[in-house]
Amino acid sequence: SIRLQNISSHLKKDSTDTHSKAIDEEESVELEDSKENINRKNDCQNKRTLSNERDDELKQDERYFVKIHAPFEALLVLAEKLKVKLPFSENKAPLRPGLFDHGLPCQFTRLNPTEFPPPHNGKTYFTACYQKSLHYRFSEHFGDINQVFRPAERSRLVYEILLRCPYRSPEPLLTAIDEIESESPEMDSTAPNLVMNSRQSQASEKQTLKIEEVFTSSTRRSGMKDTGIEVLLEEGVYEAAFPLHDQLIDEEDAGEPETWNDRMKLYHRWARFSNIFRVQPIRAIRDYYGERLAFYFAWLGWYNSLLTVPSILGVFVLLWGLLSVKYDQPTLDICNPTSSYLMCPKIDRQAYWFLNETCFNAKISYIFDNSASVAFAIIISIFAVSVNFLWQRQEYRLQFEWDMTDITEETETLRPDFERRVEKTIINKVTDKLEPYVPLYKRLISYMSSFSVVLFMVLLVLAVVAGIVVYRLSVSAAFNTIDREMWIYRWKPIIVPITGALINLVIILILQYFYEILAIWLTNAELHRTDKTYEASLTIKMFLFQFVNYYASIFYIALIKPLIIYKPTHLDHHSRPFRLEECDVSGCVWELSIQLIIIMVGKQLISNIWEFYFSRLWNMCRKRIKFRQTVRQINKRNAKMKQMHDQPLNMNLKRSYEEDFLLQPFELTTLFYEYLEIILQFGFVTFFCLSFPLAPLFAFINNIFEIRIDALKVVKEFRRPVARPATGIGTWNSILPIMAKVTVLSNAFLIAITSEYIPRHVYYWTIGNYSLNGFLHHTLAPFHPSDFPPVINRTLLECEFIEFRLIDLSKQSTFFLPFAQSYHLSHFDCNSSLANEIRSQIDFSTCYYKDYRLDHTHNYARSYMFYYVMVARLAFVIIFEHFVYSILFLVRNFIPRGPRSIRAQLERCRYLVQQMYWGAELYA
Amino acid sequence: SIRLQNISSHLKKDSTDTHSKAIDEEESVELEDSKENINRKNDCQNKRTLSNERDDELKQDERYFVKIHAPFEALLVLAEKLKVKLPFSENKAPLRPGLFDHGLPCQFTRLNPTEFPPPHNGKTYFTACYQKSLHYRFSEHFGDINQVFRPAERSRLVYEILLRCPYRSPEPLLTAIDEIESESPEMDSTAPNLVMNSRQSQASEKQTLKIEEVFTSSTRRSGMKDTGIEVLLEEGVYEAAFPLHDQLIDEEDAGEPETWNDRMKLYHRWARFSNIFRVQPIRAIRDYYGERLAFYFAWLGWYNSLLTVPSILGVFVLLWGLLSVKYDQPTLDICNPTSSYLMCPKIDRQAYWFLNETCFNAKISYIFDNSASVAFAIIISIFAVSVNFLWQRQEYRLQFEWDMTDITEETETLRPDFERRVEKTIINKVTDKLEPYVPLYKRLISYMSSFSVVLFMVLLVLAVVAGIVVYRLSVSAAFNTIDREMWIYRWKPIIVPITGALINLVIILILQYFYEILAIWLTNAELHRTDKTYEASLTIKMFLFQFVNYYASIFYIALIKPLIIYKPTHLDHHSRPFRLEECDVSGCVWELSIQLIIIMVGKQLISNIWEFYFSRLWNMCRKRIKFRQTVRQINKRNAKMKQMHDQPLNMNLKRSYEEDFLLQPFELTTLFYEYLEIILQFGFVTFFCLSFPLAPLFAFINNIFEIRIDALKVVKEFRRPVARPATGIGTWNSILPIMAKVTVLSNAFLIAITSEYIPRHVYYWTIGNYSLNGFLHHTLAPFHPSDFPPVINRTLLECEFIEFRLIDLSKQSTFFLPFAQSYHLSHFDCNSSLANEIRSQIDFSTCYYKDYRLDHTHNYARSYMFYYVMVARLAFVIIFEHFVYSILFLVRNFIPRGPRSIRAQLERCRYLVQQMYWGAELYA
Repeated sequence: SIRLQNISSHLKKDSTDTHSKAIDEEESVELEDSKENINRKNDCQNKRTLSNERDDELKQDERYFVKIHAPFEALLVLAEKLKVKLPFSENKAPLRPGLFDHGLPCQFTRLNPTEFPPPHNGKTYFTACYQKSLHYRFSEHFGDINQVFRPAERSRLVYEILLRCPYRSPEPLLTAIDEIESESPEMDSTAPNLVMNSRQSQASEKQTLKIEEVFTSSTRRSGMKDTGIEVLLEEGVYEAAFPLHDQLIDEEDAGEPETWNDRMKLYHRWARFSNIFRVQPIRAIRDYYGERLAFYFAWLGWYNSLLTVPSILGVFVLLWGLLSVKYDQPTLDICNPTSSYLMCPKIDRQAYWFLNETCFNAKISYIFDNSASVAFAIIISIFAVSVNFLWQRQEYRLQFEWDMTDITEETETLRPDFERRVEKTIINKVTDKLEPYVPLYKRLISYMSSFSVVLFMVLLVLAVVAGIVVYRLSVSAAFNTIDREMWIYRWKPIIVPITGALINLVIILILQYFYEILAIWLTNAELHRTDKTYEASLTIKMFLFQFVNYYASIFYIALIKPLIIYKPTHLDHHSRPFRLEECDVSGCVWELSIQLIIIMVGKQLISNIWEFYFSRLWNMCRKRIKFRQTVRQINKRNAKMKQMHDQPLNMNLKRSYEEDFLLQPFELTTLFYEYLEIILQFGFVTFFCLSFPLAPLFAFINNIFEIRIDALKVVKEFRRPVARPATGIGTWNSILPIMAKVTVLSNAFLIAITSEYIPRHVYYWTIGNYSLNGFLHHTLAPFHPSDFPPVINRTLLECEFIEFRLIDLSKQSTFFLPFAQSYHLSHFDCNSSLANEIRSQIDFSTCYYKDYRLDHTHNYARSYMFYYVMVARLAFVIIFEHFVYSILFLVRNFIPRGPRSIRAQLERCRYLVQQMYWGAELYA
Repeated sequence: SIRLQNISSHLKKDSTDTHSKAIDEEESVELEDSKENINRKNDCQNKRTLSNERDDELKQDERYFVKIHAPFEALLVLAEKLKVKLPFSENKAPLRPGLFDHGLPCQFTRLNPTEFPPPHNGKTYFTACYQKSLHYRFSEHFGDINQVFRPAERSRLVYEILLRCPYRSPEPLLTAIDEIESESPEMDSTAPNLVMNSRQSQASEKQTLKIEEVFTSSTRRSGMKDTGIEVLLEEGVYEAAFPLHDQLIDEEDAGEPETWNDRMKLYHRWARFSNIFRVQPIRAIRDYYGERLAFYFAWLGWYNSLLTVPSILGVFVLLWGLLSVKYDQPTLDICNPTSSYLMCPKIDRQAYWFLNETCFNAKISYIFDNSASVAFAIIISIFAVSVNFLWQRQEYRLQFEWDMTDITEETETLRPDFERRVEKTIINKVTDKLEPYVPLYKRLISYMSSFSVVLFMVLLVLAVVAGIVVYRLSVSAAFNTIDREMWIYRWKPIIVPITGALINLVIILILQYFYEILAIWLTNAELHRTDKTYEASLTIKMFLFQFVNYYASIFYIALIKPLIIYKPTHLDHHSRPFRLEECDVSGCVWELSIQLIIIMVGKQLISNIWEFYFSRLWNMCRKRIKFRQTVRQINKRNAKMKQMHDQPLNMNLKRSYEEDFLLQPFELTTLFYEYLEIILQFGFVTFFCLSFPLAPLFAFINNIFEIRIDALKVVKEFRRPVARPATGIGTWNSILPIMAKVTVLSNAFLIAITSEYIPRHVYYWTIGNYSLNGFLHHTLAPFHPSDFPPVINRTLLECEFIEFRLIDLSKQSTFFLPFAQSYHLSHFDCNSSLANEIRSQIDFSTCYYKDYRLDHTHNYARSYMFYYVMVARLAFVIIFEHFVYSILFLVRNFIPRGPRSIRAQLERCRYLVQQMYWGAELYA
């Protein structure tokens, strides 16, 4: 079969050997035909004629490379068709970069202009869509014609024509590129044929027409399965098609840093971990990889530099909590051992206990949940809703810098997968041509099945969350049976949530792994017509599931668990077997923090390590297993070459197309996962910031590495992607507001329900007379043990408490030492004198539990304070939401999306373009 | 001075007389120069050469008309410059109009195709921006060249060149139109000069270049005060510039309806009241007046047909209330005379009273405030948030039908007012030319002063609202002093709010009138650079003020008044002199309805009558007073002409440019006020729908007339406006969502706070055991009169009540007749036997008032029910808002703005355009 391995419109300059020079000098396509598939070859006549070189040494591997080269004149023709913008007028007053435009404003993070020299020798130009009739206006700014089109742009232009090339043409209708290259000496389709120096050849009128024919009469949109490289790839005629990377040479061989190629520069000055504190050379990334990839790195870097603000704030909030905990009256009250409250038994603690046991939890809770952290949550909410808006301003700036404004959407191309697999055809109303078509009922069926699978997976996640709850309950219960003297018993409040969270994390990662496979399989089965709908469908599926997968357990702890408060009358297992777990007396914030830290930090660590090593491993496996033959042959040939030339191994001996071929392909979903990761992280940072103010800092540190890991992957482990223009981060722009909405909702309810902020303040301003003295008593409801249901053995409850109390006391005082000894000898005797002494000291007639309820004379009905506080909670939610959205509304309506200076530049550009077009005939 | 009276690019076909034919055949400009201003005339050389005719008979009035004519070729050149879209390919599968696209789907409202024949003989075309190089593609679809450009388009094109014409040019640089018309026989600038049949003349290459010069070298944007008709108008060189109307001829003289001109058709088949139930010929309006005006009528018609749904629902809701009132238990309880509650005295009613006195109010309240109306309010909220979205779909459709898609924004022109009044200049960064400039500090000063004036006016409105409250309080108090037997006393609960509302309405209208003058004066003083910012500034000012002006009093009654509940201990005047008014026991809904009906209906009635008669009156005054001379001369000449020709008065004798000149000018703000009116009406319909379900119906009826009144104004009373392209209703698209947000908020709080819905349902589901029996008792709190403050004379309170009771009873029974007689004879004696008998029947130890409070043993503290209900109220607000916005979110995200069929058409069009451009050189 014929395999198109390699497409590149990139020009290289450094080459010594004549043979390899030919390869490197041209953008070329190599193809190979095995014996069995000559018919096919004839179908693809036009492709065949593009062949420049066949590598005879590689014949045994039956893999040939075709290099495609497009001369400058062809690129110009393509530029006109595809509305590529080229400079036409110098910008005398270019935009000055703002202080924060490239991330942190520190001097040492600035880009060194000598490392990545600005284009056009630092001059700035206004650009307009290239038009042949106005060539004279553009050509005066061309300068070096190798610099007119950016490398990424060249590869894109060539790929665009490959997308539109018909390959089954009965009459000898040859494509434009063919015609352009026809000036090269021999045009034998069987013998290897080198096209040299054709870049200098002039494109004749006839050739231009041919490109027009490609664009009009047989566009890729006709859908007749006879056009476009992608269909050939899908059908296995070619194995791969990709632009060539610049070669990555060892630093010592590479010469002066100024002469390095783009990839070398990017590798050494961007991708390596040593650059971790340097600003990203976004423009160079864009020049080399195109806008789509550059936008990802721009977004990530921008977002990360934005994160510094909440990171610093978060550290201060934590410090405030740590410093002020010793002055907080309710916490002091809880920790006070002399006047502690006798607490009622709980489901996982079938004995009375003293409130001061939860002192540690209470302190931790206060550290995370205090006035500063509430203020922090409010700030984070405003931050979350404005991130999207701020990013759009940044996006606007980048669009302007990259000439991506006023870009009309590309016409959609059918997915090759769709064309290959769909049999039925219908007349496309747009193009008036036959194209494959999936009937409505089939689409409905596949959507329905996708929907039910996603639903099932979501329910599975919820089941997992429920399972973790059961796990925690049973481990808690198990702890009650073990010896109270063991060290592990003391750590129970930490061990249970931590192990629960760890198990949860493992399950989340496993589910994610399988779901990713499932989602792609489902989306493929849906037979999407275009990449756009394919991506949209995949996005919805992945986002929905990952959202539930990562956040469900945290939301449960944050918003549902605090609502579960049982009266002590509901103590017995038997009457209510399905009891949910309650929070600690000091609130759920503590547990929430543990869950959050483990899932967020654990997830990021694991996925970063995975990312970093996985793609290396994958490439290694590819080389070792799949392409073992190829690699061996390359090595053999290199050795031979070395012998022949008998000189120190020159890097040019390595053929970059071979090397590139061995790398991982860059797929549609590669960037998708990266974006998804950041968006999920954004959720962790914003949704629950109340309970973990260090989340932004962790995210910030993670992202610093994330940028370099992704950069390394893109520079070293992946084939160079075909550059695609993009005007922004696409779908993620519409997912960010959704995240912001969830943030506002989540923070509103976190503060109102989970946090103690509202009850404290209600007490402070009303009953407490501007102090929190007595707040603890106010939140505890008295209970008469006589009201326990009959199945509960009150004497046993008391006994257990006394036993436990004695263990504690025996550690503190020698008086109780006899008990400790007797305990070790035999079982505890509840009627011993020691026990009775304790019993006499303690008033068992009332125990307390945390709730706003009246005493037993009112049958433990909810006190009016409960509703009073609830009114305050709900009012807070309403005020908070309206406050945040009002700010957003004002910001959105009074700050324009485009900064004024940029809009002025754009207007100036539009004005000059209009002048040029209006005056075209005047000056022609 | 030279006065450019009249610009028209419209072609007329029916003419008999040679002389007037010349006028009518050409789009022409007439100008007149008086002796004193020859210099000026020389400055305006280019204008002078446009003169075609001078009217010698009118010389004594010193007002001359210049008619400007642009031949087809010039229009084509302009079309290319201004990117006018022309048909280039037939659409074989045109879009079929949907069922609801033209309003109501009834057969009798459909447009009769013979009355307004579709363009291009019913064929549909794809359009593209005209390009001279592709002329062959466009010209094959031209047909009759008079039909290629729509009348509105022609006037716009001519106006665009007038905007850009330089008038002070030292070298004889003549404009394009001048050159084009130079083939006409004589070009004497002093003698009247008729250009005939020049339309047939071919535009030469040279002429085309001239238009280009106008567009490039000396555009209107240069801002050097030397270009453009608008500056001339501002400086009084010309008095007016407007396109000509078609002539409106009496029906009997007009001949066959098929041959009527466009204005005749619009008048007889759209504007007159007899067409009230016919659908609007939107396309014809657009063809004649341009898109901006057509969008107004399209929006109004569309909005009105959308209103039918809530109108019908509203009627049903009212019927439901009327029919179910007799089954409502709480209302029955209130009206029950046998077991009525003794109510405590209120501030405006210094005596005890029986609850059944408010029976009537309670019934009315229930009729407006029941479960159906709550459901109605929810539906209306969803309606309000989706109106904007639905309209955007409709707008998209209209944009498609009117070829307004992919329109890039016009370059902004400076306001002539700005150019004339601003002295300082600065180099414009966009055009690199000097232009007037207002320094920042001056702008800040003017903005600050505007802001403070607006703030003052808003505070004034709030003061008025407070004043009305005082009025109501004092009238209520006054009622207490008058004889209780007078009929007027019985009507007190109606008279007080009605008179209050009427006074409020009058003040609102007066304030509005003065504020409009003030707002325009302020906005002028702000010296805006472009019309866009001018309009934006005016919109913010007007909208903000009118919003407060119209809604403040209603919001006060709806949302603030219900919160004001005093305990009977606060009865005395002396300790608390500043007391606010309370609502009736049956709630505020009843009062809200009155306020709403009067302000909404009253406002609409008055403003419609005003609109209808005012512009007629204005025109009449203009003719009678300002242009008395002119009118007299026209009449004289007509009489002379009639004599000369000695034939039945032909309509052509009336010169349409003279007639048009006498009409009102169509200004920037004319449409603005119309939009504002509808938006305010939208607020009345949606904000308070709970309390007045007929509001949509009233609005619907109003709008039916509004459409025709506006149409009549536009057709008969105004000069024809220069057609401006528009892609929609502009700013109002961003004001609609604001209205929707206020609607959701207002309805949420109306249901939660004003309505009795929540308390009823809380009672129903909890205490009431699924019935409303006892609900009345539950909402009333007991009070012990012994707790009245000492200044209150309890005996007096009892006496007054007994007296009042006796009056009532004496009307019902003969037993108490003696009292009635004695009452008339002398003052009532509180210790009489009759009084004692009554006293013995009534238990004065407890009176009731409406609140959730405990009895006197708890010191009348708020009962827990108060907080319980408040929790329910706030929870309702949260749930309601999130519910409505979730629906909006789903709708927005899953229904695309453009209907699928239209998007397919647009894509087809883009595809064909791209094909045409790509293939241009192939077929050339």
